[in-house]
Amino acid sequence: MFNFEYYAPTKIIFGKNTEDQVGEQIKNFGGSKVLIHYGSKSAVKSGLIDRVKQSLDESSISYVELGGVVPNPHLSKVYEGIELGKKFNADFILAVGGGSVIDSSKAIAYGLAEPDCDVWQFHTKQNKARKCLPIGVVLTIAAAGSEMSNSCVITNEKTGEKRGHTNNLSRPKFAIMNPELTMTLPDYQTQAGCVDIMMHTMERYFTQGGNMEMTDTIAEGLLRNVMKYALILHNDPKNYDARAEVMWAGSLSHNGLTGCGNNGMDFASHKLEHELSGMFDVTHGAGLAAIWPTWARYVYKNCLHRFVKFSINVMQVEAASTDEETALKGIAAMEDFYKKINMPTNLHELGINPTDEQINQMAESCASAAGGQIGAAQKLSKGDMITIYKNAI
Amino acid sequence: MFNFEYYAPTKIIFGKNTEDQVGEQIKNFGGSKVLIHYGSKSAVKSGLIDRVKQSLDESSISYVELGGVVPNPHLSKVYEGIELGKKFNADFILAVGGGSVIDSSKAIAYGLAEPDCDVWQFHTKQNKARKCLPIGVVLTIAAAGSEMSNSCVITNEKTGEKRGHTNNLSRPKFAIMNPELTMTLPDYQTQAGCVDIMMHTMERYFTQGGNMEMTDTIAEGLLRNVMKYALILHNDPKNYDARAEVMWAGSLSHNGLTGCGNNGMDFASHKLEHELSGMFDVTHGAGLAAIWPTWARYVYKNCLHRFVKFSINVMQVEAASTDEETALKGIAAMEDFYKKINMPTNLHELGINPTDEQINQMAESCASAAGGQIGAAQKLSKGDMITIYKNAI
Repeated sequence: MFNFEYYAPTKIIFGKNTEDQVGEQIKNFGGSKVLIHYGSKSAVKSGLIDRVKQSLDESSISYVELGGVVPNPHLSKVYEGIELGKKFNADFILAVGGGSVIDSSKAIAYGLAEPDCDVWQFHTKQNKARKCLPIGVVLTIAAAGSEMSNSCVITNEKTGEKRGHTNNLSRPKFAIMNPELTMTLPDYQTQAGCVDIMMHTMERYFTQGGNMEMTDTIAEGLLRNVMKYALILHNDPKNYDARAEVMWAGSLSHNGLTGCGNNGMDFASHKLEHELSGMFDVTHGAGLAAIWPTWARYVYKNCLHRFVKFSINVMQVEAASTDEETALKGIAAMEDFYKKINMPTNLHELGINPTDEQINQMAESCASAAGGQIGAAQKLSKGDMITIYKNAI
Repeated sequence: MFNFEYYAPTKIIFGKNTEDQVGEQIKNFGGSKVLIHYGSKSAVKSGLIDRVKQSLDESSISYVELGGVVPNPHLSKVYEGIELGKKFNADFILAVGGGSVIDSSKAIAYGLAEPDCDVWQFHTKQNKARKCLPIGVVLTIAAAGSEMSNSCVITNEKTGEKRGHTNNLSRPKFAIMNPELTMTLPDYQTQAGCVDIMMHTMERYFTQGGNMEMTDTIAEGLLRNVMKYALILHNDPKNYDARAEVMWAGSLSHNGLTGCGNNGMDFASHKLEHELSGMFDVTHGAGLAAIWPTWARYVYKNCLHRFVKFSINVMQVEAASTDEETALKGIAAMEDFYKKINMPTNLHELGINPTDEQINQMAESCASAAGGQIGAAQKLSKGDMITIYKNAI
């Protein structure tokens, strides 16, 4: 068991109609001039943005709006938000959306707190953030867990680089989570969200050294629950309880709870996927599903005890005659699950077919961003990455 | 499923030697003049207070000290701390100890933030706190969960009243949790702590209406783990991993996580026990063990589905031919567990034998503090409380 820090200060307001409290919560956390940030026009059309603005009006909070955040959010939109926020003198950023909107909001919040820095330097590790404006969230997609996390992933669309910036300063002050707001999501987005949620726990699960049993109990239970409710939502997308279970699991999966006492984190699948979605703009969760089985078969021998535990306790397969077989049965069972929810299990099914040159470019970019190697279940160098990308086709 | 709020902003620094970081953490959270508060002389003799002071010296933080907090902490000590803190102009309270020390620190922190109010009025609900000084914790007993909770329980030793004050303002800024610091605890204190930890989850588990499945998964897993590691510690008190599992479970059990989406909380056993330890000064966890089986047999028919789930998923008994029998098997299994760890299962074993008059006085006090009724699994009036106390003898 390893020493750990756990810090998840975000106040959660969960359930029906909770978006009506947004003005009051912003006030509680000291906001008075708010930049409302969102993505597609659906947030406007559905009336959500109007309800949010009404709540802010009722709390006498002034605001400006900036929509248009795209999946794999762009650096150019972040710069636009910073400019707008400066002119308005914003003291609080409100994200209305999913992970992309929240991450874009976090980057804007850093930029406004340190107006003399280029925020992209926080992502390329050329500079270290010391301040961040407070951020609130009205969550509309259960997936990224950014509503409680310290993570902020932005794509520099000019260079194709997708880079994360991890810092406790950007953990949101509050997150309003009404599962009803996720009910109109297309099944593909819902299921990709479920994969992303699961992967945040799996990235913490597959490490060298045993986790705490309390942590494993939560992690394994969370994975079983998300699989159960993903299948329910596949057939019954308006099921409130299933939406709520998935939504809450999404926050718990990425707020640090499922990694307490473990030996670092893996996040190799995430990093391999970041290159894919940086280059091909695929849906993040779908990209993860397309990479994970190949990654798992590449590394499982090096982290066998964890794969065996995963197979038995999460995938609930019967133990085979050898540990290796048990591990492989668990990986195959996860692949079967992905198929049941119409998620891709390789790059071909994801709809992309990278050339050798593109694969080399992605591996080069991934390795250089990580200082050479990624992973905890097994350290992966550029050559390993190339093999995994090729095997995943 | 019910709407809920979850707010657990305390930063956890967990593991070996983490107490060396206390000065740095106080600085991070803005403290410069610290009141160090602790209980028995063992914290001094063990060298812990010296290590804490050294860390504060290294961070150039000045401090005063106040020891002498007793279990079921006294209001008079709180007043003493407030006076000392005023003279010193303290801006931060550091609790070095367990639940009693933390609760005493919280009450002092309220008193210093609002020097014109009598803090006892926050406990009697005659006044509502609006401010609280920041609090840090170096935890030495795994039990109360006060290091992450919003709860503060103080005993007015002049009147014998033991009363809680629940308010998010007093959630500690950080808690340093080194399981090694709990290794010298006598077995009775260790096991009473385990019961207290379990009860914080059980008080949230036995309610009308189903919880979220994610919440139940965590709650049931936490209870199974604490029972497992309590038994290990009964035979092997220096087992680091077992100390760590119990310590972390203690925080998670009372920070709100095991109640998300449930329909209120029960806390009847806690309230019945508060009267007992207010009058007889028993160890809180032992008092809970002595009350719970009687409470459970009194209310289980009114909350049958939860007791059945508890019996199967937590106590892992085989389902009997009727739900009632299954529920009773689970209650008996918990009683057996208490016996295995040498905890009392009735008032006689707890070493007290209250008279009818004393029972009437406790029930009267409990009912009046709660505005007439307590409980969520079943509402209990004064007459019910009298019956439970009598059945528990």
